[in-house]
Amino acid sequence: MNIGILQFAPRLGHVEENLRTIAAMLRGRKFDLAVLPELATTGYNFADRRAAWESAEDRRGNSFATFAELAAVSGGAIVWGIAEKTGRKLYNSAVLTTPEGDHHFYRKTHLFFREKLLFDPGNTGFRVVEWRKVRIGVMICFDWIFPEAARTLALMDCQLLAHPANLVLPYCQEAMITRSLENRIFCITANRIGRETTRGRVVRFTGRSQITGPDGRRLLRFGRTEKAFKAVKITPRAADTKRVNRWNDLFADRRPDWYGV
Amino acid sequence: MNIGILQFAPRLGHVEENLRTIAAMLRGRKFDLAVLPELATTGYNFADRRAAWESAEDRRGNSFATFAELAAVSGGAIVWGIAEKTGRKLYNSAVLTTPEGDHHFYRKTHLFFREKLLFDPGNTGFRVVEWRKVRIGVMICFDWIFPEAARTLALMDCQLLAHPANLVLPYCQEAMITRSLENRIFCITANRIGRETTRGRVVRFTGRSQITGPDGRRLLRFGRTEKAFKAVKITPRAADTKRVNRWNDLFADRRPDWYGV
Repeated sequence: MNIGILQFAPRLGHVEENLRTIAAMLRGRKFDLAVLPELATTGYNFADRRAAWESAEDRRGNSFATFAELAAVSGGAIVWGIAEKTGRKLYNSAVLTTPEGDHHFYRKTHLFFREKLLFDPGNTGFRVVEWRKVRIGVMICFDWIFPEAARTLALMDCQLLAHPANLVLPYCQEAMITRSLENRIFCITANRIGRETTRGRVVRFTGRSQITGPDGRRLLRFGRTEKAFKAVKITPRAADTKRVNRWNDLFADRRPDWYGV
Repeated sequence: MNIGILQFAPRLGHVEENLRTIAAMLRGRKFDLAVLPELATTGYNFADRRAAWESAEDRRGNSFATFAELAAVSGGAIVWGIAEKTGRKLYNSAVLTTPEGDHHFYRKTHLFFREKLLFDPGNTGFRVVEWRKVRIGVMICFDWIFPEAARTLALMDCQLLAHPANLVLPYCQEAMITRSLENRIFCITANRIGRETTRGRVVRFTGRSQITGPDGRRLLRFGRTEKAFKAVKITPRAADTKRVNRWNDLFADRRPDWYGV
């Protein structure tokens, strides 16, 4: 299975332009699953909720049709970040769009920093979608620091954890090695690059998107400022066994009676 | 508060010799808390349960008196690894011995590899001991790979996580940075050095003991083969706040309704 990451710098509030950039970067590329950054269609550093709302879309939005077509043409599924509106709610969401035209939603559980002023806390919880016999889970950016996020998905038999991100701090990429190791799953962190300045508030994004395997190895790695789509071949079934040696199975060895939540 | 780690190579099955080595290394050193490796009194690579049993002690054993005296003389508490027998049970345990002469027990929850042939699974669960207003939790070696271990202790308001280890794989030291960050606690990993060959089975230990702070920084670090006692000053209260910025508190932001166990 060919897993790709698209690392780029969305332009704040320019959804149509971002869709064109994404389409151009994915055109002619081969992948079974492509993961894009958080809020890939909209940019990140909104002045306020109203500005975020103006870039937000619901299922009828053009981004959905565009990604459905990109998925259909490439034959691969795409996980992409969006500002999602529904009723009066506004979510920092990621959508898994399949070539068959299905859209599966995840709404960010743990909001970071000023996102709390912009978005409503996600109400989907963590979900695993089985697509072509591959079990894909999604979490977004800051969810990484809560070990329960990746753990919950792994306990639902997630093989691939798609992790759209807009990272500004330097810790996540190393920590995702631990998330892969402790859960024996593939983690695909699609971060963005560039910076955004809104009302004097500068936000710099750290790139270094990566894929880590169940054994903790980095299988793919981007630079800090690299604009690219890159893919690597993996075997999702490698995440099925939680066995790390003859005596230890990381899931069978769990002792939940001693765990507090 | 002065936190020290004693990194050395215990000699398999030579409890009295190991106690003399430890006493010599701690003599005249200043510390409020010293953490020693897993099974520091006995060594690790036992041929079978019977061999482990022969090195094991209960509360009446000489190691308890020795550590009570070392603690009393130094004025600091000591966390040390022991093969602990009680009735017909045999545990891979760590004891927190205070200068006041109290012994607090933790019995390893997640046994690694051939330990499953040697020891009974721990039945204490994770505990936090408050000593001189500092809240100390203990886990042992392989417990690190289960995020629930450090998390459970942190949720019990542990400030310092004492982590005696006999590490043979290269992943733990990096992962403990994540354990510190995600829980905003101090983690004190006391690993051993050297190797042991028993019936042709060679086990090599990886040293690199370390202390990591709530912000993920390494505050103290040993070499791979370094035999030493080293200490560093820390402020346990730094672990009390789980706030990482104006908007985020890592514990208040948890959403357990969405977590699976």
